[in-house]
Amino acid sequence: MKKLISLLTVGLLLAPTLALAEDAPVSEISYVLNTFSFLVMGILVMWMAAGFGMLESGLVRSKNVATICLKNISLFGIAGILFYLMGYNLMYAGVDGGYMGSFGLWAADDAAALAGDYSGGYAAASDWFFQMVFCGAACSVVSGCVAERIKIWSFLAFCVVLTGIIYPIQGSWVWGGGWLSEMGFLDFAGSTLVHSVGGWAALTGAIILGARKGKYGKDGRVNPLPGSNIPLATLGTFILWMGWYGFNGGSVLALGDAASAISMSNVMVNTNLAACGGMIAAMILVQILYKKVDVTMGLNGALAGLVAITAGPDTPSLGAATLIGAVGGILVVIAVPFFDKLKIDDVVGALSVHLVCGIWGTMAVPFTNSDASFLTQFIGVAAIGVFVMVATSVVWLVLKYTVGIRVSEEEEYRGCDITEIGMEAYPDFQTIHLGGSGVAPVVGAVSAARVATEPIKHS
Amino acid sequence: MKKLISLLTVGLLLAPTLALAEDAPVSEISYVLNTFSFLVMGILVMWMAAGFGMLESGLVRSKNVATICLKNISLFGIAGILFYLMGYNLMYAGVDGGYMGSFGLWAADDAAALAGDYSGGYAAASDWFFQMVFCGAACSVVSGCVAERIKIWSFLAFCVVLTGIIYPIQGSWVWGGGWLSEMGFLDFAGSTLVHSVGGWAALTGAIILGARKGKYGKDGRVNPLPGSNIPLATLGTFILWMGWYGFNGGSVLALGDAASAISMSNVMVNTNLAACGGMIAAMILVQILYKKVDVTMGLNGALAGLVAITAGPDTPSLGAATLIGAVGGILVVIAVPFFDKLKIDDVVGALSVHLVCGIWGTMAVPFTNSDASFLTQFIGVAAIGVFVMVATSVVWLVLKYTVGIRVSEEEEYRGCDITEIGMEAYPDFQTIHLGGSGVAPVVGAVSAARVATEPIKHS
Amino acid sequence: MKKLISLLTVGLLLAPTLALAEDAPVSEISYVLNTFSFLVMGILVMWMAAGFGMLESGLVRSKNVATICLKNISLFGIAGILFYLMGYNLMYAGVDGGYMGSFGLWAADDAAALAGDYSGGYAAASDWFFQMVFCGAACSVVSGCVAERIKIWSFLAFCVVLTGIIYPIQGSWVWGGGWLSEMGFLDFAGSTLVHSVGGWAALTGAIILGARKGKYGKDGRVNPLPGSNIPLATLGTFILWMGWYGFNGGSVLALGDAASAISMSNVMVNTNLAACGGMIAAMILVQILYKKVDVTMGLNGALAGLVAITAGPDTPSLGAATLIGAVGGILVVIAVPFFDKLKIDDVVGALSVHLVCGIWGTMAVPFTNSDASFLTQFIGVAAIGVFVMVATSVVWLVLKYTVGIRVSEEEEYRGCDITEIGMEAYPDFQTIHLGGSGVAPVVGAVSAARVATEPIKHS
Repeated sequence: MKKLISLLTVGLLLAPTLALAEDAPVSEISYVLNTFSFLVMGILVMWMAAGFGMLESGLVRSKNVATICLKNISLFGIAGILFYLMGYNLMYAGVDGGYMGSFGLWAADDAAALAGDYSGGYAAASDWFFQMVFCGAACSVVSGCVAERIKIWSFLAFCVVLTGIIYPIQGSWVWGGGWLSEMGFLDFAGSTLVHSVGGWAALTGAIILGARKGKYGKDGRVNPLPGSNIPLATLGTFILWMGWYGFNGGSVLALGDAASAISMSNVMVNTNLAACGGMIAAMILVQILYKKVDVTMGLNGALAGLVAITAGPDTPSLGAATLIGAVGGILVVIAVPFFDKLKIDDVVGALSVHLVCGIWGTMAVPFTNSDASFLTQFIGVAAIGVFVMVATSVVWLVLKYTVGIRVSEEEEYRGCDITEIGMEAYPDFQTIHLGGSGVAPVVGAVSAARVATEPIKHS
Repeated sequence: MKKLISLLTVGLLLAPTLALAEDAPVSEISYVLNTFSFLVMGILVMWMAAGFGMLESGLVRSKNVATICLKNISLFGIAGILFYLMGYNLMYAGVDGGYMGSFGLWAADDAAALAGDYSGGYAAASDWFFQMVFCGAACSVVSGCVAERIKIWSFLAFCVVLTGIIYPIQGSWVWGGGWLSEMGFLDFAGSTLVHSVGGWAALTGAIILGARKGKYGKDGRVNPLPGSNIPLATLGTFILWMGWYGFNGGSVLALGDAASAISMSNVMVNTNLAACGGMIAAMILVQILYKKVDVTMGLNGALAGLVAITAGPDTPSLGAATLIGAVGGILVVIAVPFFDKLKIDDVVGALSVHLVCGIWGTMAVPFTNSDASFLTQFIGVAAIGVFVMVATSVVWLVLKYTVGIRVSEEEEYRGCDITEIGMEAYPDFQTIHLGGSGVAPVVGAVSAARVATEPIKHS
Repeated sequence: MKKLISLLTVGLLLAPTLALAEDAPVSEISYVLNTFSFLVMGILVMWMAAGFGMLESGLVRSKNVATICLKNISLFGIAGILFYLMGYNLMYAGVDGGYMGSFGLWAADDAAALAGDYSGGYAAASDWFFQMVFCGAACSVVSGCVAERIKIWSFLAFCVVLTGIIYPIQGSWVWGGGWLSEMGFLDFAGSTLVHSVGGWAALTGAIILGARKGKYGKDGRVNPLPGSNIPLATLGTFILWMGWYGFNGGSVLALGDAASAISMSNVMVNTNLAACGGMIAAMILVQILYKKVDVTMGLNGALAGLVAITAGPDTPSLGAATLIGAVGGILVVIAVPFFDKLKIDDVVGALSVHLVCGIWGTMAVPFTNSDASFLTQFIGVAAIGVFVMVATSVVWLVLKYTVGIRVSEEEEYRGCDITEIGMEAYPDFQTIHLGGSGVAPVVGAVSAARVATEPIKHS
């Protein structure tokens, strides 16, 4: 639906100038190109799952790294299975202005194209693939925020509901041709439908789980619990940046004619410049505020710019795209301490990046796209926010009062890797147990200054 | 040959419905698309060499990490050179129902296409590139299994023979149009031709080399020698998963018409769901058996699903593909302790993943493809297994009794990085020397419990 | 301009055999394919920024890793913004045999294509994207060479000038259609225009900055300061190798006809074999010279082969491409100790790889391309070398005598991560402070032998 609508839109808008595009001789090749675009761009979006995995692996403490690795790869597996079992149908099967599609297995049918009728536009499986990886991305947003204290199987159970039911239902409202799409709500590649959804789900999770032990002192002090591997976090950001070309570029949903190719090119360049703007703005602001240029703020600034441009990368000029990204970068520098003030413990900054900038990007669409209105954009953001917060709260609470969602204090202290996965991420390295609240034995080469607040890990 | 046959097959099967596909006006563009598909998908398969490198770097102990890095990148270099010097010709030059092609330099000739005759289907070099990266992948399977005790130059000498002679000869039997292909043996993208070949070569290597010191205790106990970097292993798995879209998707061997594009889409989606099925099945089984959800089993489960679907990703339904992968995931959880019981020391689980699931996937083809027969599939698996085991045993034994294949006990204890590469992988980190059999000095921050069995590395 | 010229060249050279290529019916699709090639190949080149980031993160000491991460990702952001604000125009806007284009914002105009005239050949933004990532690559070369002692903001200020002014001006001389292009200077994908430019900029930076403390002893001894993470360096090399397919393959600048597809295939295969040749040659030579097969020399050998083939990957035979790469690999093994003898402290070997092999590759073009002359190639190498050395020296010196370019001795000793970024790259790991010149306390599990020259980091 998403792409059918887009294809029609492109067709209508460009009809006067692109009469040649409907010519029969190129239509099989257009079909092939549309399909290949979904596949190549979908692979790039799948790659973002690795990006989230590396980013989060780098930003949690070493005692929880193996767990976050397993979560990030297995949630992608769950997204694939659930989107096949029900998600795709719920999102796209006969929504037609309504609130959701139907339950049931997705089944492809390409018979028409094999019989020479290419009006479907692309191979069915290529569209399924492209939409599935988006579903996985929404889920990836959650894992980082609730890391270091959630039970892995409870988290995965949550992912089943998020990818099988919650994500597809709200997705049907816009990309499935549902009521928000009929109102004119615009979200090109998912600032709201993907990123804010992950953000809202993460927000309810973080609130219901509570903060990590030792994060917020009794005197109101916020203890930094620094990430254990900055190059991995940087690699993750690079991967996400790379994958975002596919996320936004592929959301043109066609490559079979010159207009689509031009649009895809513009989208990719705007996406890139928004990332640049977000990163540089965050770096400058953090240097001014804190006199050091915090690397994780730079990384999150780039991601903030990417999230912000995602709602409308097709219409801004390059300068406007850079600015939209830059505002995202500034918002993230402000939002991180804001959530800490609320004692909402977001391990990797996912709320600041995906929720705050997802909203910002969606609300910024009318600045450069006259088809969008601030009111409709606000209605879409709010409706999806309320729905996802309510739905995910129910799921988190059901899990909490049945199987439980939080590991014990002892398990949290020792780290989820040992207690849940039975395996350390870095068993060969002598590690320093950062954070936590136990007694700190003075040993080895660790300086007294650090030991004072941080117990040693008896690795 | 591989693709010529496939193209003809596709052509014949779809001839009634696809009369338009042979139309002259699109043929140059079809040629371009076929070529571009080989290049893009080939790049993804090349990327799998990095995936193997990171997976294996994460699963060996820190004292052997630099060595495994060098092995993984240099074997890809060797594969490139040998496939140019002889491999491609041996595999594809005039096999015609026989057992091998001819020795000699590969030489491209695209004159016909430049003169306007596009019946060759694709640029010669694009096919060479795509086939070469498959050859490299077979070789990558071996390095992880025999890690931590093999001499690097002996290993690279083995790679020369594997990529230059052994892999191409058995490959010629099927993809080169040789006797197995004439019998009707089906292996779409190489469960047998690539993965089991690497697996058999690794098996003979692991047996002839013997186990690592300290792996198997005198009382029959199996000592875990845990991998040193789980995020790297996870990254490697993500890379392999991503690359597999190219491995299987590119093996459609065409993109110039709608039928190929549809087939490629189906293949990619089945590939993805098999990985999902393998991972989730392995995670659930390992949780039931061991009460913890071992992250490396999850990773190997995903890879097991990918190997299993590779023999026939084009015919199963999505549900069948998920199940084929899930059986692979279950097999890997069973196979890992099985090989340990036989005291065959497989450092990264390569035999369980690539050999066991390669066989499983090949034998599963007849379940969903009526053109395949269990007997023919079995003959292919067995013939290639016997050939590769005999041939690689000869090579390993010749190396063993000439230059030697195993490092000394002292070198193994200190780690190959220092003794063979002259460089540590992580020189800045204080490390704990895991495994080995020396006396254990009690020092620093290491707990007595671990020290009891593990000597400290004086890094 | 770069591609316009190339397209015309291809058109003229192949005119007799490719009459069909100008046929109207395929031209919109050719336009789409040219555009898509720029986008896909450009994404691969963007990915090289991550490759440089990981390579350099692996080759610096752990106390400077977070800083090098931030530098590598932020320089790519700066390149994007500056190439938009002025770089692209300076390089391509009306150069016509001259020395530079004009200042001013880049503005796309695809109106002709939308009106059905596809003679522009590709979407404007796709070309901008492809050229921008090349600009970023030149800048990435610099960061590794001057690592571990440069102030981050001064480095980024340098990047602004390099990517906004210096790179585009010299680029305009060749790819912009300027005076060197009119003389017949040939540099297919940038051995000189990208790699040697980064190399010259790094050379002046390394000289003006001076060597790291402790690198060169008073007795003339060179102290190795080993990189902290070899798997990351290996990953970086794999990423760069992968990205180079796009770097060179995309520089065919077209994909809309069979001749372009054939050329792209040949270019990618030659690129691959040059990397193989460089790596294997470097490994063999280093084994002979030093009796160990240094992994970083293997990695740099592969990169040396890649840089060397970049000036002319379209004309050599596969054997010649392998040899051109192999000579690059040999040069890098010779050049690394050569620069150390000159006490030019190049942290990652960037001068040996990008400068030396960039020159070698450019001078090697006439061996396989009869359109090139040694004299013209030499003039191009020298002119660009002199221009970039003078221009970058001015920038480095202005920065040195205004804001300063080098961190204090105390900051260098503690590491830039703490002093400039306020964050450690690996805070959880107990680290050994390698290099430096302070007093060495004997502590923990560190052997006396190492401690004698290396103080412990009180992490």
